[in-house]
Amino acid sequence: MEHIIIIGGVAAGAKAASKIRRENPHVRISMYNKGKFISYSACGLPYFIENLVEKPEKLLIRSPKDFEDKYKVKVFTEHRVTKIHPTQYQVDIVDLNSNEKSTEQYSKLLLATGAHVCIPNIEGTGLENVHILKSIEDAIAIKDKMPKCKKVIIVGGGYIGIELAEAFIQGGKDTTVIEMGPDILSHLDDEMSQEVHTYLTHEKNLHIMTNNKVTKLIGNKEGKVSAVQTESGKELACDLVILSAGVGPSVDIAKDAGIAIGKTGAIKVDRRMQTNIRDIYAAGDCTEQVNMITDKPVWIPLGSTANKQGRVAAINMTGGDAEFTGILGSSITKAFEYSMAKTGISAKEAEELGYNYVCATITNKDRSGYIPGAENITIKLIADKDSKKLLGAQIIGKGDTDKRINVIATALTAGMTVKEFQHIDLSYSPLFSTSIDPIIVATYELLKKL
Amino acid sequence: MEHIIIIGGVAAGAKAASKIRRENPHVRISMYNKGKFISYSACGLPYFIENLVEKPEKLLIRSPKDFEDKYKVKVFTEHRVTKIHPTQYQVDIVDLNSNEKSTEQYSKLLLATGAHVCIPNIEGTGLENVHILKSIEDAIAIKDKMPKCKKVIIVGGGYIGIELAEAFIQGGKDTTVIEMGPDILSHLDDEMSQEVHTYLTHEKNLHIMTNNKVTKLIGNKEGKVSAVQTESGKELACDLVILSAGVGPSVDIAKDAGIAIGKTGAIKVDRRMQTNIRDIYAAGDCTEQVNMITDKPVWIPLGSTANKQGRVAAINMTGGDAEFTGILGSSITKAFEYSMAKTGISAKEAEELGYNYVCATITNKDRSGYIPGAENITIKLIADKDSKKLLGAQIIGKGDTDKRINVIATALTAGMTVKEFQHIDLSYSPLFSTSIDPIIVATYELLKKL
Repeated sequence: MEHIIIIGGVAAGAKAASKIRRENPHVRISMYNKGKFISYSACGLPYFIENLVEKPEKLLIRSPKDFEDKYKVKVFTEHRVTKIHPTQYQVDIVDLNSNEKSTEQYSKLLLATGAHVCIPNIEGTGLENVHILKSIEDAIAIKDKMPKCKKVIIVGGGYIGIELAEAFIQGGKDTTVIEMGPDILSHLDDEMSQEVHTYLTHEKNLHIMTNNKVTKLIGNKEGKVSAVQTESGKELACDLVILSAGVGPSVDIAKDAGIAIGKTGAIKVDRRMQTNIRDIYAAGDCTEQVNMITDKPVWIPLGSTANKQGRVAAINMTGGDAEFTGILGSSITKAFEYSMAKTGISAKEAEELGYNYVCATITNKDRSGYIPGAENITIKLIADKDSKKLLGAQIIGKGDTDKRINVIATALTAGMTVKEFQHIDLSYSPLFSTSIDPIIVATYELLKKL
Repeated sequence: MEHIIIIGGVAAGAKAASKIRRENPHVRISMYNKGKFISYSACGLPYFIENLVEKPEKLLIRSPKDFEDKYKVKVFTEHRVTKIHPTQYQVDIVDLNSNEKSTEQYSKLLLATGAHVCIPNIEGTGLENVHILKSIEDAIAIKDKMPKCKKVIIVGGGYIGIELAEAFIQGGKDTTVIEMGPDILSHLDDEMSQEVHTYLTHEKNLHIMTNNKVTKLIGNKEGKVSAVQTESGKELACDLVILSAGVGPSVDIAKDAGIAIGKTGAIKVDRRMQTNIRDIYAAGDCTEQVNMITDKPVWIPLGSTANKQGRVAAINMTGGDAEFTGILGSSITKAFEYSMAKTGISAKEAEELGYNYVCATITNKDRSGYIPGAENITIKLIADKDSKKLLGAQIIGKGDTDKRINVIATALTAGMTVKEFQHIDLSYSPLFSTSIDPIIVATYELLKKL
């Protein structure tokens, strides 16, 4: 009998399991997950820590019981797949509770091993009250520590670092973000990061140290972290440290099995989510994607991508035909009233990649100024002088950024030129936008420069 | 010296005036407006009546003084242009206060005469407390009456009727909408209108009578409206009536001057906003547009269109080159927590036009279900079975409809097929959407049917 084994059950894996069942009512499906929780929203973890979401159970999409009863998927939590034998169509498994080892035969295999937090190679990362945030277990551990902590240091100013900073400040903690690079949120262009930086430090009392590296975590007699030391020699007292300075794709067992790894360090897959080895598919954070703008491989691990890839893999693994054509790196983050959205490539990426590009930036109200709650948004559009096409956009501010970034994402997917794009007919009501939407105003500016 | 005369100063006219000045610092510009107020947001009038906007001045974008000082535009309010003499390049003008008549020479003329409310041809429309809503003056008059009124009848369930209904209910009035057609918001498909209808009657206590025609307005001894009589013979007591059963383009002087009128009854213009008569342009609610989906002329008067057309006319009237390529009829309305958005054509329009079309409707949460404030939206997508392209969408609900409708509007402008559209990479955070956005879920459903 056909047997599909899925390694990893959080986003891509869980999505694939349910979709495989919908596509094929008969195939045997087993899902192995090293953690206790499967099928949950990892993107929601900062909001659980912030207490916007009270209970971790709320983040669960489907329970193991749901999978077993509704989808007839056999779920093995706290089980690790330790080795893949592609020629024998076998995997070795260890039960993390009993340490019992076993071997299972598969007809098709899906790798959804996800990503992991990179622990910096410095002294003191093993101290108590030093945490990472990847799983529900991590989030519960951090939330448990919060009542007793006063000074939090977050190592890394990426979007998870900034989402966590909000959670800690909302919890009344003295919070510092230490970022190695020139500014937080490095996926944005510098002046956009700088605007968010200013907002967070001036209006929200977040401490941000940029161009700074943590060289050591210092503990007290009880083995708890009590300070961090930075490259500049400074010592900063703290009682909780979150390591959030980077993530990497979890590809060890894939590599070991001879599955091709791309330049980005993640698993190489084709549009059907197939690896280089027959009957082995991969989806989610462990895989690399193609950037639809540059046509180059990138590794941008996002929950939206993982879910779509899981779906595509499931369709193909059950004899269907679906494609995942690539990503734009569309993303959005919120920190208090500010949201920061991006799609396509930034000006600095365009520069690196050698595009002959041009930018236009405007700041406008997000709806008619007389409507209570109208707020500013800053829109930066990037276009290619040669092809006259849009390359990307960044939108930040207290106003409504998400609806605008998705319009640009759609235009990018369609490969619209700026000239074509100016004619989009967006819905207008004073409650929702200005009569000529800020995106169009920005587009008029961009046209002048092309 | 060149002299540009603009007839009408609310949306398209005011926009054109400021844009003409930006394009040409020297040309003489005169703007004539029959009302007292120019350059204001007519779309904001219901929110002034609702008191979301306290003072009518808030709705003013630029004052006559702004125009004179900043843009060197000579503004004549309460002046009516009574006749155009195209061969002589002259217009006849009457000062509505002094009744003084004059004639002015123009080198280029812009018609921005807008639209008017159609007063039904029934008895009693001249009674006191019977109002229309078109201008700021109208809105002030209605708002003045509100404190003394208890029972309001709105004749017409279009979006202005519904926006007004919200205003009256918020003001504690017993409010009834009487609609001639089978349901309110007739630009939507029936089942979508029905959902809004149910919401408004069940949750908001609005009375709605459909398939019903008002045949007579009845007055009391003081000449104030006291009841309306309907076709069915029913008499409904009231102390305030708003006539909102239709609008028409204001084209009398255009017609009189031999300017071509389209099938829709509005002025025919090309993409450069030129009429059939040399040096006479038209923009805004008095003109018809081309529907980008059907390539047919339509008359959908909207503030967003008016502003863009005013801009395009201004550029072309000053020697530049710009185009207005058409509309999708994208619109959005709000009634309490519900918003109703549309772009492209509805299923009933597709039916009338003979398309071989298919629809998919889903109801999903607008963001991750565990985030407080997540609400349902219902998405209906319409596609062409022959071309496999999207034709239109309607999105309604308490959740975030506006950002989704604009994504579809962009896809429609780009002429995307449903297959291409499924690959859009939208930004995701649990605060803003589900990991696979409801639009994509609806698209997957649509694909199954194609």
